[in-house]
Amino acid sequence: MGFTWRVTARFYEIDRAGIVFFARFYEYAHAAYEELMAEMFGSAEAMFSTFLFAMPLVHTEADYRRPVFMGDRLRVDVSLERLGRTSVTFRYRITGDEDGEERCTVRLVHAFVDRERFTPIEVPAVFHEALARVGMEKE
Amino acid sequence: MGFTWRVTARFYEIDRAGIVFFARFYEYAHAAYEELMAEMFGSAEAMFSTFLFAMPLVHTEADYRRPVFMGDRLRVDVSLERLGRTSVTFRYRITGDEDGEERCTVRLVHAFVDRERFTPIEVPAVFHEALARVGMEKE
Amino acid sequence: MGFTWRVTARFYEIDRAGIVFFARFYEYAHAAYEELMAEMFGSAEAMFSTFLFAMPLVHTEADYRRPVFMGDRLRVDVSLERLGRTSVTFRYRITGDEDGEERCTVRLVHAFVDRERFTPIEVPAVFHEALARVGMEKE
Amino acid sequence: MGFTWRVTARFYEIDRAGIVFFARFYEYAHAAYEELMAEMFGSAEAMFSTFLFAMPLVHTEADYRRPVFMGDRLRVDVSLERLGRTSVTFRYRITGDEDGEERCTVRLVHAFVDRERFTPIEVPAVFHEALARVGMEKE
Repeated sequence: MGFTWRVTARFYEIDRAGIVFFARFYEYAHAAYEELMAEMFGSAEAMFSTFLFAMPLVHTEADYRRPVFMGDRLRVDVSLERLGRTSVTFRYRITGDEDGEERCTVRLVHAFVDRERFTPIEVPAVFHEALARVGMEKE
Repeated sequence: MGFTWRVTARFYEIDRAGIVFFARFYEYAHAAYEELMAEMFGSAEAMFSTFLFAMPLVHTEADYRRPVFMGDRLRVDVSLERLGRTSVTFRYRITGDEDGEERCTVRLVHAFVDRERFTPIEVPAVFHEALARVGMEKE
Repeated sequence: MGFTWRVTARFYEIDRAGIVFFARFYEYAHAAYEELMAEMFGSAEAMFSTFLFAMPLVHTEADYRRPVFMGDRLRVDVSLERLGRTSVTFRYRITGDEDGEERCTVRLVHAFVDRERFTPIEVPAVFHEALARVGMEKE
Repeated sequence: MGFTWRVTARFYEIDRAGIVFFARFYEYAHAAYEELMAEMFGSAEAMFSTFLFAMPLVHTEADYRRPVFMGDRLRVDVSLERLGRTSVTFRYRITGDEDGEERCTVRLVHAFVDRERFTPIEVPAVFHEALARVGMEKE
């Protein structure tokens, strides 16, 4: 099970080579993550004001399969790739919304930390519960 | 009459002051412009490959009324502010999608030029026709 | 008198039309503003943590003269265009660092507000003094 | 041996969490890559207009060690991590310019392709020669 979000490639996301700049896919993935957080916690902002934990990124990576052009309608499928003791990895598979062909797959690895002291903590119970609530369980 | 498009303020569009950076509103406006072009010409890309004219920006401006925060759902209302002999000005009024309060109004002034020679030309007939087709006439 | 800062147009600032996207010039201008603030107050960060005032943008505008291409070396000349009772306008003239030809001129209008209550205040004395210190007086 | 470039974290690169957004480090790395290409080939633009090859990114990744704040002066040290038969990997180690402490390390993996047909090709001789010219050899 997972979470899906859609995005359109913009005029200003194109680079000198005429295709969407590679770092924009990280923005697409993070936007999908924000919508997932909104689904899990009511609003993306809630993540940053309500809870006592933060989820800084410790590793990010992307594999590029096909170029994306201005105006391309894309679909981002988010899945839970790994839920560790103190971290979580989400995978964002980006495909053409019409052809279904993969363009890029992004992985974002978040650590859980105490918001005040920024020290590592175990995945909070509220996060586990919210994942279950949106039906996004580790397969 | 006009054209409406919706956008959500993202985590990475926030600046050091904790609100959406002022230049992001120009991106919101241009994204709405791209969707308007898609409505007028079938696709935003068509503007850049089919026709013999280009529409470079010669002047842009924005007035800021209220700050925008992460996750805010916004509505961009596009209207034709001025259709000159060789230029067009679109106005983008950005409001909260729920409260209807103005956040920012952007104006983008495009000149029409010959795509090859980049010399000024009069507003092409196809542009006039496409404006009429989407019901966006100068009041 | 004024303040000068240099910047190079990047691969990822190019848009679908093959030139630097119009909103990037606002980023160049703001980066020059940050360096000016660093000159005036020791660091750009000081503006946001030390003082009791903030300088939100209330109006921004730009006029575009010539396109900018990837790798172009640019020079941004900052000058004080208007120092009002409760606001300040800086002008950023962006020229080719080699040919000296104008590419774009940006104007950023800041209001002065109380940091806590976000209500308008008169230009603080420390701001006047810092302007004088960097030799940037209203002509 | 390697190549060094410097960059300052900007007001508008900060995210909702108050630190430089994770994808901006990919922009810093690519800007350093552009300066390296300028060193190797006379100008970054030459890469895109003179030669018969292109270097699309096929994989990118980053590890984040410490947060970066507005105004932080950073140093990007570029080194050749792997020179394969048809690809090259550059590593970008980003450290504080004053404290020397690592903030982030980015890896960009480029494939070499024929510019026209976009089919894989071996690393061109001109690329090998240019690497040698800037003293950037595989250790």
